[in-house]
Amino acid sequence: MKLVCPICGKTHDEPVQRCECGEPVEFERFTGEPYIGKSVWERFWDFWPVEPALEFSLGEGDTPLVKSGLGEELGVKLYLKNETVNPTWSFKDRGTFLAMSHALKAGYKTVGTVSTGNMAASVSAYASRFGLKAKILVSESASDEKLKAVSVYGGEVIRVHGDYGRLYFESLKLGERLGVYFMNSDNPFRIEGYKGIAFEIAEEISPDYVLIPTSSGGLFRGIAKGFIELHESGLIDDLPTLIAVQAEGCSPICRAFKEGKAKIERFENPKTIAKAIANPYPPSGNAVLRLMRDFGWSCVSVSDGEILEAQRKLAGEGLFVQPASATGIAALERLDLPRGAKVVSILTGSGLKTLKSAPQGGIKECPLEMLESCLR
Amino acid sequence: MKLVCPICGKTHDEPVQRCECGEPVEFERFTGEPYIGKSVWERFWDFWPVEPALEFSLGEGDTPLVKSGLGEELGVKLYLKNETVNPTWSFKDRGTFLAMSHALKAGYKTVGTVSTGNMAASVSAYASRFGLKAKILVSESASDEKLKAVSVYGGEVIRVHGDYGRLYFESLKLGERLGVYFMNSDNPFRIEGYKGIAFEIAEEISPDYVLIPTSSGGLFRGIAKGFIELHESGLIDDLPTLIAVQAEGCSPICRAFKEGKAKIERFENPKTIAKAIANPYPPSGNAVLRLMRDFGWSCVSVSDGEILEAQRKLAGEGLFVQPASATGIAALERLDLPRGAKVVSILTGSGLKTLKSAPQGGIKECPLEMLESCLR
Repeated sequence: MKLVCPICGKTHDEPVQRCECGEPVEFERFTGEPYIGKSVWERFWDFWPVEPALEFSLGEGDTPLVKSGLGEELGVKLYLKNETVNPTWSFKDRGTFLAMSHALKAGYKTVGTVSTGNMAASVSAYASRFGLKAKILVSESASDEKLKAVSVYGGEVIRVHGDYGRLYFESLKLGERLGVYFMNSDNPFRIEGYKGIAFEIAEEISPDYVLIPTSSGGLFRGIAKGFIELHESGLIDDLPTLIAVQAEGCSPICRAFKEGKAKIERFENPKTIAKAIANPYPPSGNAVLRLMRDFGWSCVSVSDGEILEAQRKLAGEGLFVQPASATGIAALERLDLPRGAKVVSILTGSGLKTLKSAPQGGIKECPLEMLESCLR
Repeated sequence: MKLVCPICGKTHDEPVQRCECGEPVEFERFTGEPYIGKSVWERFWDFWPVEPALEFSLGEGDTPLVKSGLGEELGVKLYLKNETVNPTWSFKDRGTFLAMSHALKAGYKTVGTVSTGNMAASVSAYASRFGLKAKILVSESASDEKLKAVSVYGGEVIRVHGDYGRLYFESLKLGERLGVYFMNSDNPFRIEGYKGIAFEIAEEISPDYVLIPTSSGGLFRGIAKGFIELHESGLIDDLPTLIAVQAEGCSPICRAFKEGKAKIERFENPKTIAKAIANPYPPSGNAVLRLMRDFGWSCVSVSDGEILEAQRKLAGEGLFVQPASATGIAALERLDLPRGAKVVSILTGSGLKTLKSAPQGGIKECPLEMLESCLR
């Protein structure tokens, strides 16, 4: 299977991660047919670039698509794809599992990633599961407390002092030299793993719109490729409209999209409560712009106030998500979608990961003797 | 469907929660056959005491059964039932969903529970999802921080000052008078919901042993009833041996079991890191004792040191659990199980819920310019 650069079109026979032009490469499109199977890996066996190492699976994927009443006021049929119930409680596990399957097969003994949040925990967990060593490079601002949920799995956590954006590219370069397989946010195997979200949605409904919290752009590219491959395989009739959602305080992709540019520019002084999508210079930004232009898709940015309100509304549906994961619902109000449209919003990660920033509800104090009146 | 007291045998036509003798009642045994369906609720449709309100489901249940290498040294085939990937990240959601389905159907407007942890979050979440009000009664020692993950869903949190054990029974009494449906740890509908764990295990393997972290005893009773009903329905050939696991620092059931007593006694000065199973006077304790005696099952208690070591081992398998959830693996080393035995350990709740008590791994500091040597 060849890798191809979605921007300059150059093909690569070697398993590179990025093209000479600087853009992330991706696998050529797969076509195939579905099978009967318990896991999404088995049901869509034709569509993966490496054989999934099922003996090491933690049961990632196959997450619930939950019907929500939150679209009723707006007249749309809303579904929530709950990725917070993955093994490390974010969508990252799908991509990590597939990239790890490749690393194992290719003979690597050590893997790595650059992340301070969901992806760090995911790579740390799956490396241990696969019996590989992990080097987790985190930014200097990452707190010890936050890193507990990463180091607990056994991965080596390295806090790197210096420009975090440069670290991404340095890690790929050094990794290649040192034989450490870095599976960063737009690693081509990782992107393939995210296709499962599209496959599972298509098994249940034919969505008109899919709202995708977007930071590096890897998740957006994976879901896009999944739907495109289903379409090219004749398994779905129509492509849904994909909408990238960013936080206003860090929206390099939406800004470039609105200005009609082909390339993103670094977003200076990013500031948002949605930390998990606060990448000021997303490595897959140009690839996402290209997809939006080619398919007539779009980008919406939302304020922190709207994000918090959406987070609260989702909790009222029984789903507690991190702020980044609420952006899709925040975007819903900004979009003027046709009545009756079927809309899926991707809930990317668990609210337990950002418990500190969660709203503190009121607590009533009550002596046991007064319980009856407290309950009335 | 009648309710019956597992201790005195009295049957009840009314939907009471406890027998006059003080023990928790349970539904008579169901028999039936399995169907094709996406959710465990649909596949085992014959086995529920109330029609599951699927339109309000959050996708609870249908959790992965993960093959683990941790049994290899001991010569057993170990499987981990990962309940940490439920909608509020613990097994409680299965019982809450079914009890909530009953409350809705029975016309209640308000539900309640007594808990400071997993069950509190679960009831708060599902009450919002079902459009019901929730009164969550927590102990005076519950910290504001911990209660964030409960109040975020919208349930009213009431911190009750007084004896926590008495609160359990007071809540049931007052709830009946005030029309608040309390779904505490051994509510009969809640117990029925836990049967799904047994059903799903039986769909994949025929276990010889099932290790169950045990506090109130509700989970143990539910899993037991599930396997017994499968057996009586002719769907499995043999009952597995169920083993209740408690923390040494709070093991009222194991103590009574070892002493050959029919009734548990309050465990004075409980002290364990496994807070989620630290109930000193478990309301289903006698019912669990009875099951163990009737079926030749048993009880094992483990030390905090063993629990922490087991938590670390599980993280090395990619599964980060709360201390209480690691007790099954801790027990494995104490038991002398026959070689080749198929063993399932239930992982009850996510480690993110007890992040503060998680071990702090070492963090290496590294300037970006030195990255190469840091990675070597």
